Amino acid sequence: MINLKEITKKVLHGDFSALISYGHTKKNVHPNDVAKVLESVPKTNAAQAFCSLPHHTQIKVLPYLDLILQKEIVHTLEKQKAGIILNEMTSDDRVALLSTFSGVDRSTFVAMLNPENKDEVHDIFGYPENSVARLLNTDFATISPDVTIAEAMVHLRKNHKDSEAANVIYVVSEDEKLLDDIPVRRFVLNDPEKKVSEILDGHFISLKMSDTKDIAIAKFKEYDRTVLPVTNEERVLLGVLTIDDVLDIAEQKDTKEIQNFGGVEGLDFPYVKTGFFSLIKKRATWLIVLFVGEMLTATAMGYFDAEISKAVVLALFVPLIISSGGNSGSQAATLIIRAMALNELTIKDWWFVMRREILSGLTLGLLLGTIGFIRISIWQNMHWFNYGPHWFLIALTIFFSLIGIVMWGTLSGSMIPILLKKLKLDPATSSAPLVATIVDVTGLIIYFSIAAFILKGTVL
Amino acid sequence: MINLKEITKKVLHGDFSALISYGHTKKNVHPNDVAKVLESVPKTNAAQAFCSLPHHTQIKVLPYLDLILQKEIVHTLEKQKAGIILNEMTSDDRVALLSTFSGVDRSTFVAMLNPENKDEVHDIFGYPENSVARLLNTDFATISPDVTIAEAMVHLRKNHKDSEAANVIYVVSEDEKLLDDIPVRRFVLNDPEKKVSEILDGHFISLKMSDTKDIAIAKFKEYDRTVLPVTNEERVLLGVLTIDDVLDIAEQKDTKEIQNFGGVEGLDFPYVKTGFFSLIKKRATWLIVLFVGEMLTATAMGYFDAEISKAVVLALFVPLIISSGGNSGSQAATLIIRAMALNELTIKDWWFVMRREILSGLTLGLLLGTIGFIRISIWQNMHWFNYGPHWFLIALTIFFSLIGIVMWGTLSGSMIPILLKKLKLDPATSSAPLVATIVDVTGLIIYFSIAAFILKGTVL
Repeated sequence: MINLKEITKKVLHGDFSALISYGHTKKNVHPNDVAKVLESVPKTNAAQAFCSLPHHTQIKVLPYLDLILQKEIVHTLEKQKAGIILNEMTSDDRVALLSTFSGVDRSTFVAMLNPENKDEVHDIFGYPENSVARLLNTDFATISPDVTIAEAMVHLRKNHKDSEAANVIYVVSEDEKLLDDIPVRRFVLNDPEKKVSEILDGHFISLKMSDTKDIAIAKFKEYDRTVLPVTNEERVLLGVLTIDDVLDIAEQKDTKEIQNFGGVEGLDFPYVKTGFFSLIKKRATWLIVLFVGEMLTATAMGYFDAEISKAVVLALFVPLIISSGGNSGSQAATLIIRAMALNELTIKDWWFVMRREILSGLTLGLLLGTIGFIRISIWQNMHWFNYGPHWFLIALTIFFSLIGIVMWGTLSGSMIPILLKKLKLDPATSSAPLVATIVDVTGLIIYFSIAAFILKGTVL
Repeated sequence: MINLKEITKKVLHGDFSALISYGHTKKNVHPNDVAKVLESVPKTNAAQAFCSLPHHTQIKVLPYLDLILQKEIVHTLEKQKAGIILNEMTSDDRVALLSTFSGVDRSTFVAMLNPENKDEVHDIFGYPENSVARLLNTDFATISPDVTIAEAMVHLRKNHKDSEAANVIYVVSEDEKLLDDIPVRRFVLNDPEKKVSEILDGHFISLKMSDTKDIAIAKFKEYDRTVLPVTNEERVLLGVLTIDDVLDIAEQKDTKEIQNFGGVEGLDFPYVKTGFFSLIKKRATWLIVLFVGEMLTATAMGYFDAEISKAVVLALFVPLIISSGGNSGSQAATLIIRAMALNELTIKDWWFVMRREILSGLTLGLLLGTIGFIRISIWQNMHWFNYGPHWFLIALTIFFSLIGIVMWGTLSGSMIPILLKKLKLDPATSSAPLVATIVDVTGLIIYFSIAAFILKGTVL
């Protein structure tokens, strides 16, 4: 085995010879292994090491690096060299890299492209960031339906290099409209004298340039494809989308969803690569929003000031009560948001969800309420804590409050995401903590109202 | 366009003719479209409709159905028919379906398999549920390195049918050891007179039967592959893993992670397909654990009983204080858990994370503390609420408490997942609400201690 650790150590000390010869001598080197070495050293070392690699290795390795490092490297390279590399990249990798630049920087690099690539990049940037167009790979192989398989193979051999793009061959009419897609294996598995038109199965799934990335993810999953063609409105084939990009964006989407659940704005880069201040900004925004919302709890409790003075014991259970509402709300929100993200649920199912969550809330509330009631009874009767002569009424208050609050929590947690979706907002950003905050404030009102009703005339 | 809605309506009324002729007449039908119809009607209708489909359609459609429906259908079919279908399925789909059965049921169905499939299933069930073996597809194409491309193509044409399995051809030695993998396109793109050994690139990535599914996901992503070979310890090729299975398990894993964040045990089936009681069970477990943990807040507050009686105003800020700790803890936990799940962070980075999170906590705490301080000052000076003559000291208490609690929240939130990972537990199940509960209880102690220190001799 080749020792990547030693090579990394040498690169760290500015000695790139091992890395270069590693790429040269070993035939079985995957570009990702070189990329791993570069990613494990500081950016400036990585950029220098990259510059010292032979050209064909650079071209292969670059797309495997994370975008931050790609950006750094392109900045470090001399202009002419950067231009050559940018022109040789596949269109999806090129667009991904150029997307990280903005303003003058982007224009400078776009200016380095040859006319054909320049037009293409301009076209693609005309589509929204969330569209399939941004992931378009314009390297694909086409064939006419009227030739024989043998002829098609000769044509492919002459016109296409050995890249992923040749895994699926697109059959197009004379005016470049997509007729069908054929996995290249079908050329091998059929009699070479057959015509291409004879081995078509006539069903293909395609995407439109303006389709969202979410639609693309869903289609790849549903139809078990590894590459899908992208056409314009006139069914003219413009490019293809490959599953490796889809796997990446599906992961990014889930990461964003998870971060939103935790009350953080989705990070653009991995945690370790996100700068300190940008990390603070992503966290502070929501933390402040939630904090300001949660301030209403102080207002709500201020309103029950008199009750608390009379029965301090009520204050003791405030954290327990509101956290139960918050937790049951988070659970419901999580389940509903994820189910909607996976298209298992739509807004139309709101009534089904509502009935189900009210019933769930009642059951869960009864469970927690009973535990709470037993807890107070035991503490009182074992003399571990004295809740006063009316301890039974207090236990009853906690019992009913928990039922009310857990029901309210599951109901809000399940309905708020559906409501946000109905308002065309992203339900993931409602996120569990937002629901928890809303339930905290309203939960206090439920708690003290039930207390006032049960304890009036005795404790209060 | 074919109207799937009308077909669905007919199936609902027990009329399967439209569905059958749909599969027959239309050449461009994807099995997933038939599967969609079956999934949108009640289980019993779906099972009946499935039975009425022609055999070759049944074979194609079955794997596209969700496992619950597959199970129902296999139960409905007569034994002999079920046996035929089970034997004709691909090995990964067969194992997935058999995994849903347990005990006698599973044995009954395994008994229906032919000897070869039976051995295979027994072998695979010998590996843990989380291993690559469970996803193994034993349908793959092999070739010797010593033949020419033209000979290889004739061999493939004779021995392999047109399925995904023929997209990548495995080059094996005489004793069936894996030498290399070749995408089938390379046969088309090279001179047919060349020997197979001439077009090998000598680098292939492979998996072992006992590798975990997580390792598989990571390798597919890193090396941009759509299919990976699986070998035993002696490098003998046993089967392949395809990316569609990997996409599915990656999604399931993320769903489980998200549900854990929301304090729910990972559901085995989608929300809408999970029965009411099984849903309650998945939620109740964690809700009760968190509730029992949160009971300690009542104990902690009981300990500060006297302080609260003297200064009820302290109780008013309890929800605000503890929720701030909980929210900042959730944020940190979410970021760290996700970064660890994506291998961006390992346990070894704990010191980097700790320094960073202490600094983040300090910054965020200062922000919230300042807002809290200003809030009290304004309310007091505008006479919206009266915090008493010592309002300034109370505002100061809130300021310092928020700094302390937010720092404590980010620190616990980031360190608890790392600690759990170190203890070989799954950090995702520590989940945000667990961190929030821990921070709630300890946060109260921080708050009342700071209050005691600042307010001693005045309010207290």
